[in-house]
Amino acid sequence: MKKQKNKVRLSNNAGTIPGTLIHIGEKKTENQKVTIFDYDTNELIEKEIVNMDELLTFREKPTVTWINIDGLHEVKTIEKIGSIFEIHPLVLEDILNTKQRPKTEDFTDYVFIAMKMLSLDKNNMDIISEQFSMILGKNFVISFQEFEGDVFKNVRDRIRTAKGRIRRMKSDYLTYSLVDAIIDNYFGILENFGEKIETLEDIIIESPQSDTLEEIYKLKRTFINLRKSVWPLRELISSIIRDESELFTSKTNIYFRDVYDHTIQVIDTIESYREMVSGMLDIYLSSMSNKMNEIMKVLTIFAAIFIPLTFLAGIYGMNFKFLPELNWKWAYPVWWILALVIGIGMLLYFKKKKWL
Amino acid sequence: MKKQKNKVRLSNNAGTIPGTLIHIGEKKTENQKVTIFDYDTNELIEKEIVNMDELLTFREKPTVTWINIDGLHEVKTIEKIGSIFEIHPLVLEDILNTKQRPKTEDFTDYVFIAMKMLSLDKNNMDIISEQFSMILGKNFVISFQEFEGDVFKNVRDRIRTAKGRIRRMKSDYLTYSLVDAIIDNYFGILENFGEKIETLEDIIIESPQSDTLEEIYKLKRTFINLRKSVWPLRELISSIIRDESELFTSKTNIYFRDVYDHTIQVIDTIESYREMVSGMLDIYLSSMSNKMNEIMKVLTIFAAIFIPLTFLAGIYGMNFKFLPELNWKWAYPVWWILALVIGIGMLLYFKKKKWL
Amino acid sequence: MKKQKNKVRLSNNAGTIPGTLIHIGEKKTENQKVTIFDYDTNELIEKEIVNMDELLTFREKPTVTWINIDGLHEVKTIEKIGSIFEIHPLVLEDILNTKQRPKTEDFTDYVFIAMKMLSLDKNNMDIISEQFSMILGKNFVISFQEFEGDVFKNVRDRIRTAKGRIRRMKSDYLTYSLVDAIIDNYFGILENFGEKIETLEDIIIESPQSDTLEEIYKLKRTFINLRKSVWPLRELISSIIRDESELFTSKTNIYFRDVYDHTIQVIDTIESYREMVSGMLDIYLSSMSNKMNEIMKVLTIFAAIFIPLTFLAGIYGMNFKFLPELNWKWAYPVWWILALVIGIGMLLYFKKKKWL
Amino acid sequence: MKKQKNKVRLSNNAGTIPGTLIHIGEKKTENQKVTIFDYDTNELIEKEIVNMDELLTFREKPTVTWINIDGLHEVKTIEKIGSIFEIHPLVLEDILNTKQRPKTEDFTDYVFIAMKMLSLDKNNMDIISEQFSMILGKNFVISFQEFEGDVFKNVRDRIRTAKGRIRRMKSDYLTYSLVDAIIDNYFGILENFGEKIETLEDIIIESPQSDTLEEIYKLKRTFINLRKSVWPLRELISSIIRDESELFTSKTNIYFRDVYDHTIQVIDTIESYREMVSGMLDIYLSSMSNKMNEIMKVLTIFAAIFIPLTFLAGIYGMNFKFLPELNWKWAYPVWWILALVIGIGMLLYFKKKKWL
Amino acid sequence: MKKQKNKVRLSNNAGTIPGTLIHIGEKKTENQKVTIFDYDTNELIEKEIVNMDELLTFREKPTVTWINIDGLHEVKTIEKIGSIFEIHPLVLEDILNTKQRPKTEDFTDYVFIAMKMLSLDKNNMDIISEQFSMILGKNFVISFQEFEGDVFKNVRDRIRTAKGRIRRMKSDYLTYSLVDAIIDNYFGILENFGEKIETLEDIIIESPQSDTLEEIYKLKRTFINLRKSVWPLRELISSIIRDESELFTSKTNIYFRDVYDHTIQVIDTIESYREMVSGMLDIYLSSMSNKMNEIMKVLTIFAAIFIPLTFLAGIYGMNFKFLPELNWKWAYPVWWILALVIGIGMLLYFKKKKWL
Repeated sequence: MKKQKNKVRLSNNAGTIPGTLIHIGEKKTENQKVTIFDYDTNELIEKEIVNMDELLTFREKPTVTWINIDGLHEVKTIEKIGSIFEIHPLVLEDILNTKQRPKTEDFTDYVFIAMKMLSLDKNNMDIISEQFSMILGKNFVISFQEFEGDVFKNVRDRIRTAKGRIRRMKSDYLTYSLVDAIIDNYFGILENFGEKIETLEDIIIESPQSDTLEEIYKLKRTFINLRKSVWPLRELISSIIRDESELFTSKTNIYFRDVYDHTIQVIDTIESYREMVSGMLDIYLSSMSNKMNEIMKVLTIFAAIFIPLTFLAGIYGMNFKFLPELNWKWAYPVWWILALVIGIGMLLYFKKKKWL
Repeated sequence: MKKQKNKVRLSNNAGTIPGTLIHIGEKKTENQKVTIFDYDTNELIEKEIVNMDELLTFREKPTVTWINIDGLHEVKTIEKIGSIFEIHPLVLEDILNTKQRPKTEDFTDYVFIAMKMLSLDKNNMDIISEQFSMILGKNFVISFQEFEGDVFKNVRDRIRTAKGRIRRMKSDYLTYSLVDAIIDNYFGILENFGEKIETLEDIIIESPQSDTLEEIYKLKRTFINLRKSVWPLRELISSIIRDESELFTSKTNIYFRDVYDHTIQVIDTIESYREMVSGMLDIYLSSMSNKMNEIMKVLTIFAAIFIPLTFLAGIYGMNFKFLPELNWKWAYPVWWILALVIGIGMLLYFKKKKWL
Repeated sequence: MKKQKNKVRLSNNAGTIPGTLIHIGEKKTENQKVTIFDYDTNELIEKEIVNMDELLTFREKPTVTWINIDGLHEVKTIEKIGSIFEIHPLVLEDILNTKQRPKTEDFTDYVFIAMKMLSLDKNNMDIISEQFSMILGKNFVISFQEFEGDVFKNVRDRIRTAKGRIRRMKSDYLTYSLVDAIIDNYFGILENFGEKIETLEDIIIESPQSDTLEEIYKLKRTFINLRKSVWPLRELISSIIRDESELFTSKTNIYFRDVYDHTIQVIDTIESYREMVSGMLDIYLSSMSNKMNEIMKVLTIFAAIFIPLTFLAGIYGMNFKFLPELNWKWAYPVWWILALVIGIGMLLYFKKKKWL
Repeated sequence: MKKQKNKVRLSNNAGTIPGTLIHIGEKKTENQKVTIFDYDTNELIEKEIVNMDELLTFREKPTVTWINIDGLHEVKTIEKIGSIFEIHPLVLEDILNTKQRPKTEDFTDYVFIAMKMLSLDKNNMDIISEQFSMILGKNFVISFQEFEGDVFKNVRDRIRTAKGRIRRMKSDYLTYSLVDAIIDNYFGILENFGEKIETLEDIIIESPQSDTLEEIYKLKRTFINLRKSVWPLRELISSIIRDESELFTSKTNIYFRDVYDHTIQVIDTIESYREMVSGMLDIYLSSMSNKMNEIMKVLTIFAAIFIPLTFLAGIYGMNFKFLPELNWKWAYPVWWILALVIGIGMLLYFKKKKWL
Repeated sequence: MKKQKNKVRLSNNAGTIPGTLIHIGEKKTENQKVTIFDYDTNELIEKEIVNMDELLTFREKPTVTWINIDGLHEVKTIEKIGSIFEIHPLVLEDILNTKQRPKTEDFTDYVFIAMKMLSLDKNNMDIISEQFSMILGKNFVISFQEFEGDVFKNVRDRIRTAKGRIRRMKSDYLTYSLVDAIIDNYFGILENFGEKIETLEDIIIESPQSDTLEEIYKLKRTFINLRKSVWPLRELISSIIRDESELFTSKTNIYFRDVYDHTIQVIDTIESYREMVSGMLDIYLSSMSNKMNEIMKVLTIFAAIFIPLTFLAGIYGMNFKFLPELNWKWAYPVWWILALVIGIGMLLYFKKKKWL
């Protein structure tokens, strides 16, 4: 079994000061990159930020500002952004912890959202999980990714081309667009697993092999992990819908209800797949049992036919002086007739038993 | 195993603009057909609509108007109807998404209901799932099906012949009639599976074969999918009963309570069937184990009787010069007696062990 | 496996008009019989009713009237009673549907209760399920059974002999008495299954046979069905206790709490039995595995002892011209010693392995 | 398997008048014994009561009176006590029903508590379950046991010696003391099973035998039953804590919270044990599978080595006239070399396969 | 299997007076040690206390006082501290009971928290569980451990060096720091088990051995126990968050929400591991089944090839006088051709069956 080499460190060291910023997880990209989209219905500014102080000007502007950070390893930058937007140290700590569980937390002035962004390595069907965090403020959204990805390509295009309602809406709609893009991405991944499951089903029933077992177990394991990433989303999004923060306007509520729906569908699909995989294991076992019965039948048929016949041959291989049959003229043909009767009798017996 | 060829695309492409109308799923009928029933206690208009603008006149009439659309692939028509009845773009998107999960959503002016309509291909016991959506307004009901079906034949007949209370009641009663027809249809399908299960039970206990395994697994899979279609109905209908929308009058409430009851019964039945199927797999495994024991007994009996006897024959087949028994006069008959004693002794031993 | 011949039709035909009265299920008795008990503390009228119009007089009387109908196939009678007591058509439909799920529904003027009445065919341990419905009005109780039974014999006796408080109490106490009689009857049936389980346990551990498997599966199936009849009672009775209807006085509340208690006990017992049965299947499988090991040991012991000895005999059965041992004087006795050493050695080896 | 001889009658006969006093269960003691403790901070009366009318005087006294009845079979006594303390007939019925489920019921003037008192027959690890009921009034506690036990010995001692706060507190504290004593007693029993489980674990992994299976099943069954006795206690005690009755003062509330804690711990322990036992069954099966593989390996090794060799010997046992090898001078030694090569080759092959 | 030698006594003796102080569990350290940290923003006193009366002075001071007791066996000390800080006797009893379930209880003046502190014996992957109790008062925290550990080293360092906010905050923040340190410690332990599981997975799929089974079972058992320690924490911390006590200021609330998050993550991880372990057992069984099939194939191939050939040799080993083939010139070579045809035929047959 191919091992997952990246050891999972689940938390920061016991005992470090809460609120101390440490990047937990491996460095997945070389360069940290901060890009900005600043827009309203009429204008759009898109550029890469190098000096974080530039952000200060955007903070005051009434336009929607989307700051996206790719790469979490340069803690300083995160810290700087944190201080500009007055983010609680614990939130920054959560952003840097790539093992953070999906959750949302409302800090009145801003809302913090943490999720998992998944991608699939199609070669070995490994799911690569990336930490994604978001801070939604009155007129800004700050998103943090571990490395550059293309899940948000469409969102960017829509902002650029002013397609759809995104330019007319506020930062909460942008938040929705990002969350929606991530969850829609889950569907694509699940489809791949749906096909994988179908392929495995065919193999299991037709010709199970010992590495089939490994693949089933790997699938099972994958779904256990997937579930851990997806289950908390249900609670996360439903708490957004319950309108606990004023940052979410009632206008975007219907959009989040739609996302909620998709989330439930993702969860349902994972649960179904889990059940199918666990069903496959039962089928595998039964199928093995079947095969064993086939093997045993072959063995038994051979043994039951030839062992008695060998005995029969053994009798007349004895060297007793007084063994009358040895001298009979028709002994040998008679012996053959007897042997054939026994052999054919056994075959008929197994035929009757439906072993043949 | 026969593969399901139609790949399930679970959602629209990640990143398309929310509210963009795309038909998700395969085109299941050639012609889109829009039919209309417009009635009150006294009069009834039934006709096929070609130009969607005709619908405008019906919108204002106080009579109940039932617009039924078969075929979802011509997006333009759906869009047109949506704009006439002022339906939210997200709802239209859901209508066109044939992978939509059953749900109901209340938009004050109208209520959106999405369900699965099932039919059974009796040849291979495959369930064909069709997306069914409904919009209930003050005096209209718009229903969307993927292809023409006959589940609503009775509802139509009742409207035509003015049997029952349907002509005297409002659009919410029509909604009830449609939902009821769909859920009643589930029972018919479940009955078929009930019979299938009984047949399989007999086979498993009497003569399990390797394709039995395949059938059990297929049943299991079918119920996992069925469940996904049916479970959400519980919540859906109970939210209608809780009278959250003003469009549902208290008069039809008792009818929906009846439908709720049926839904629970459908769910209960599916759960029972699931349990039976999973019980069948255990029985299959045990039954295989049983069979293996039978085979092993046959093998062991043959081996245990004839292997010692062959050895006995082998002894006197040796060519030692000084082997006194070879020259005894009664050696051969005595040998036979010994062989019979051993053979019969073994048989008695196995009789005692209850292997015979 | 004995099949249940009576196919279960789960609902009325999809599309029949809701409220149309059709008897669903098989006709289980030849004659429909309507009997009446009309009583207060002082007087008691008990008679059989032929003309339903007689019931009109009882409706107005302040005394408690218990109308019991055995046999549901004559729809006309039910319809007539329905119109006299002003029962909603959907309720009448539920009464006639012998596949109705247990439920209670409050119609302000009356309360409708549907339950399952069970009896046991002791020959093959089949549970016969009968639909039982009840309508509780201010001063009347109407009960509907599929065929005449004797579960209520004691209730009738108490009314006749004025034993207990039944004659002093109102119609809600009568309702309680009937429900209590039905649930007490469940205990008797469960006791039979308790004994059955104990018998099976002994068989499985001592000498499992292939039809044991069938019996376990049948038990499992029975409990799945039982559960479907009994689980809804929990909700049913607890909703009565919550005193949602004014027809239930606080005085009888304590009695219903007692019934609730019994219901929980029935449910607990069924759940325990279910767990035991599923435990039995595991034991069966393990027990089969045990047996297989026993068989394999016997085979292996025979094979491992006699196959080498046969080889040993085979060596000196060869006809090589130059085979010096053949001419040795003590060759034969030495051979025997060697054979015995090998044989006994093997036996000791298996003894050490604890296979003997 | 040792059968439980005492058939469980789960309820009174269907149809007996509710409130009729019948002792359900077997008579477990010869003599019914009624003892009384009457105390306040200063004085203590302890005596056995023969004439129930004596109790009347205690009823009026402001001191705490604890009446304990051992033996439930003399219904008259129970009835008499019931009438003196004005207990509802249904409660008396529950007291006499030794199959009563644990529950508490609040009758304003008094609170009724039913529990199971367990003891362990250490010879065969059978749990003996005894019905325990209690009635808590303003200044009295009446407790009913099936036979004399020593679970309350310490409570009695504390009352006698005025140790702890028991003499200073009211009847609700006495109730607490009794409940606490019963639940503490559960721990002792569970400890025994903990040891039993450890012993079984060792046996299963080292040398599982066929009666191990029986013991596992018996454990499983015991925990199913235990659970039925203990689960309802959670609800029972938490309803006392919620302070629903005025008879429980807030002062004893903390004590009941402590008992609640213990109850949860008992439940947790039972659940853990259940899981361990079900894990043991899986291990047993796997262990059996292991053993089978061992047996099969032995068989295969013997067969694969000696069957080819026997064939080799058989070749030169043939009597063909023209069989050149027979006349070769070195044929016999060469034959032996060949045989050894084959034999050792097989051994090396199995070594490589790690079967040896 | 290595037995856990320390018998678990789950509760104090049934019947001891509630509130009597008895140390339950084994004595795990020789010396009881009481240390004190008394600090505010400006000053810090750190010393070991020998005479408990010293504590009185600290009680009155407005500074935060952290009293830590290592070793629970000297009951007198605990009692003394209890009386100084006016702790309820039941709380003291819980502190001394090392089998106490994690819980929190609010006594208005102080809050009692009980948890498990875990450490890992890496040699045999045994988890050592230690009882940890805490009392949070207005300006003091008293913590009780079974033996000296280093989990709190970092907390102490932070107090000493005045790093982080700990010196500026109140006793509730100290409480948070301790709880946080304990839960962070769980992660480290879980990581070890994560690696263990990965190792076992590889072994199971590549070369399962009989002690693998033992290890799986041990893991399973460990997780059952871990779960018992960790599950109650969810409720514990969420009840702190719900701000039920005034001792927890809203300022520390966000910190406890963070801890809650970590707790959920610990629980999720344990549940995932449990699922993986139970999946491993299924894989083990299937893998065993696989191996058995391999063994059986080897046996069957050998038997099916050589048993017929041995019979063939047996035929011409017979001593019939009239056996014509014996005198044919080419009989022997023809015999060999026949033998090879049979042998190779069998091999091709098994090739076709994919057994080779």
